[in-house]
Amino acid sequence: MIKMGLVGYGFMGHVHYRMMETFGEIRVMAVCDINPAQLEDLPESVAAYTDVDTMLAEADIDTVIVCCNNNQHHSVVCKCARAKKYIICEKPMALSVQELDKMMQVVEENGVHLTVHQQRRFDKDFRIIKEIYDTGKVGKVYTIQSSLYGYNGNMHDWHIYKDEGGGMLYDWGVHLIDQILWMMDGVKLKSIFADVRNVIMKECDDFFKIQFHFENNVNVELELGTYFFSDQPDWFSRHWFIGGDKGSAHCDGFDAEGCCVTTDHLLTQAPGSKPLGAEGPTRSFGKPADGLLITAPLPEVHTDHRYYFENYIAARAGREPYLVTVPQVRRTLAVMEACRKSSKLGRSVDFE
Amino acid sequence: MIKMGLVGYGFMGHVHYRMMETFGEIRVMAVCDINPAQLEDLPESVAAYTDVDTMLAEADIDTVIVCCNNNQHHSVVCKCARAKKYIICEKPMALSVQELDKMMQVVEENGVHLTVHQQRRFDKDFRIIKEIYDTGKVGKVYTIQSSLYGYNGNMHDWHIYKDEGGGMLYDWGVHLIDQILWMMDGVKLKSIFADVRNVIMKECDDFFKIQFHFENNVNVELELGTYFFSDQPDWFSRHWFIGGDKGSAHCDGFDAEGCCVTTDHLLTQAPGSKPLGAEGPTRSFGKPADGLLITAPLPEVHTDHRYYFENYIAARAGREPYLVTVPQVRRTLAVMEACRKSSKLGRSVDFE
Repeated sequence: MIKMGLVGYGFMGHVHYRMMETFGEIRVMAVCDINPAQLEDLPESVAAYTDVDTMLAEADIDTVIVCCNNNQHHSVVCKCARAKKYIICEKPMALSVQELDKMMQVVEENGVHLTVHQQRRFDKDFRIIKEIYDTGKVGKVYTIQSSLYGYNGNMHDWHIYKDEGGGMLYDWGVHLIDQILWMMDGVKLKSIFADVRNVIMKECDDFFKIQFHFENNVNVELELGTYFFSDQPDWFSRHWFIGGDKGSAHCDGFDAEGCCVTTDHLLTQAPGSKPLGAEGPTRSFGKPADGLLITAPLPEVHTDHRYYFENYIAARAGREPYLVTVPQVRRTLAVMEACRKSSKLGRSVDFE
Repeated sequence: MIKMGLVGYGFMGHVHYRMMETFGEIRVMAVCDINPAQLEDLPESVAAYTDVDTMLAEADIDTVIVCCNNNQHHSVVCKCARAKKYIICEKPMALSVQELDKMMQVVEENGVHLTVHQQRRFDKDFRIIKEIYDTGKVGKVYTIQSSLYGYNGNMHDWHIYKDEGGGMLYDWGVHLIDQILWMMDGVKLKSIFADVRNVIMKECDDFFKIQFHFENNVNVELELGTYFFSDQPDWFSRHWFIGGDKGSAHCDGFDAEGCCVTTDHLLTQAPGSKPLGAEGPTRSFGKPADGLLITAPLPEVHTDHRYYFENYIAARAGREPYLVTVPQVRRTLAVMEACRKSSKLGRSVDFE
C-alpha cells in the first residue's frame, strides 16, 4: 500500500485525487494546500494541511504527489526528499535544467525515487501516431506535425503569471516535446528552430511553433496556438500529420479520428497537359482521380491515463522501470530552454 | 503593338499563347520549339521555328517570352538580349543568383527590358491574404502559413530532371516565396530554416518546409508536399492561415474559400474547472461556447492572371512600372539558395 500525501489541491490535485482513489494499492492519507478554501471539498477521512512542513512531519505518508504551481516544485520536492518521501512531481518538474539538477542532488542524497507525471504518453492520438511510426505503416517517415489549437485564449489560474511558471511552453509544450522525444527514443536531436511568443498575454507565452531536425532526418513541427480563431468544426483540438514515403496519416482531436492513406499506383510523372481549373496553370496540384488513393483505418491502440499510475505501482514494487525517467525529463527541459533561446535569437540552435 | 516571339511551346508556352491572343496590344508573330512535334498545333499564320537563333534573326518581333525548360533560360535570354529584344522570362528566371547576374549583365549591355512571369501575384487566394495583412483585418499579424499539397506526385515532363532545373522549389517554391516577399515589401528577412528534400523523386526535391523569420516579427511557414496523401476532401490544394492579435483567417483552395474569425469577448483567463472530455485534464483546449466567435466573410478581391499582361503592356508604354522587378527576382533566388543551404546544414541561415 502506497500511503500518499498530495501537495496542491487545485485543478490537477483534484484530478489526481480522484484517479488515485480508484487504485486499491494507493491510499491518499493527507492533502495540503496553502489556501484553506481549496480543502473544503476534501473528505473528512483525509488529513488536511495548509503547511507542507507540518504535513511532512505529522502525516502517515511514504509518498508525495506534488501538484502545486510550477514555481513551487523545487522547494516542495526538496522538502519531500529531505523527509525521505518518494515523489511524483507534476510536469514540468522544474523551470530550468539548473533547477532540476539542484533538486536531483537533494533527491539523490536522500535516496528516494522521483518520477514526473507525463501522463500524455498515454494519450490516444499520440499512441496511434507512435504506432504508425514504429510499424512503418506509411513507410519511412520524413515529416510529423503535432499541433494543438485553442479557440480564444482560455489560459487559466496562475498559468498567466510568469513568476508562477506560467505560459504554454511549460504547460503544454512539455507534453508535446516529451511525446516526440519518447517516440524518437535514442535519436539525436540535432537542431531546433523555434518561435515562442506572447500574442495576447502580457507575461507568458501563448503561442509557439517549433521545428526539430533529428539525426534520422525526420522533420518534426510542434505548433500551439492559444488564440487561434476558426469557424472550422473540430479545429480547436489536437491534430497530427505524419508523412512517409509510402503514404500519410492524419489524426484529429483527442478522440483521435482520421485514417492512413496510401496508393497502389505511385505517380512519378504526370501527363503533360490537363484542363485548367481555378488553380490556373499547374499540373502538380489538383484533385486525384477516383480510386487512386486507398484509405485504411488508423491502428487501434489500447491506452488510458490510469496506466501511468499502474506503472507507478509496479515500479515502486520493483516489477517495472519507471516510465518517466529523470534523464528524459532533463532532456525535455533542455529542449525547452533551447526553444526559448532560438526564439530570442531568431536563429536555430544546435542541440545534440 | 508588341510583336511577340515565344520560345518553348510546351505547357506554359501554350498557356501564354492563348492568353496573349486575347490582347489587342500583343500579336504573337513567331513561335520556336526545338521539338517540331510541339509546333503541330500552331496556327499557320504564326511563323514556326525550331532554332532560336534563326527566329531571332528572321522573325518580325521586338519582344520574346521565354518559356523553355529552366536550364535554358540563361542561354535563351542572353541571345534575345543580344538581338535587342525585350524579354519576359518564365520563373525561375535563373537557377542561381550567379546565373541571374550574368544574364543581367548581357541584358543591361544591350539596353533591353526584362521582367519575369510571376503571375501568381494575382492568385485570388494570395490577394485575399494580402488584403487581410495590409488592412489589419485580424489585427497585428504574427503568423502566416502558406501551403500546397499534392495527392500523389504528379511531377511532370522535365520537372523531374535535375539537369533541366526540375524540382518543386524551382517550380512552385519560387511563387510561394515571391508572394510572401512581395507582401512583406521592405521588411528584412532575418533568417531562414528550411527542409528541402527528395521523398520519392530520385533527382529533384518534391517536398519543402520553410520557416521565415522577418524583422517585423512575423513568422511565415511555406510548406509544399507533392506526395501527401489524404482522404480529406479539398485537401489537395492551396491553404492559408493568417493569425493576428485580433483574430485569424483561413483560406482554402485556389477558389479561395474561408473566413475571418474574431471575438467580441477575448478570454484572458478561464474558470478553474470544467468537466473533462476526451482531452483529459486541460482547460485551455476544447470547444468554444456558442456565440463566442464572430465569423466574417473573406474580403473580396478582383484579380486575374491576365492583369500580369495588362501591366506588361502599360509598362512597355511607360505608363506603369513593371510589376516584377529584377531586384525582387534576385532576392527570391537568393532566398531559394539559402533554403537549400539551410536544409543541407540542418540549421538556420542568416539572410538579411
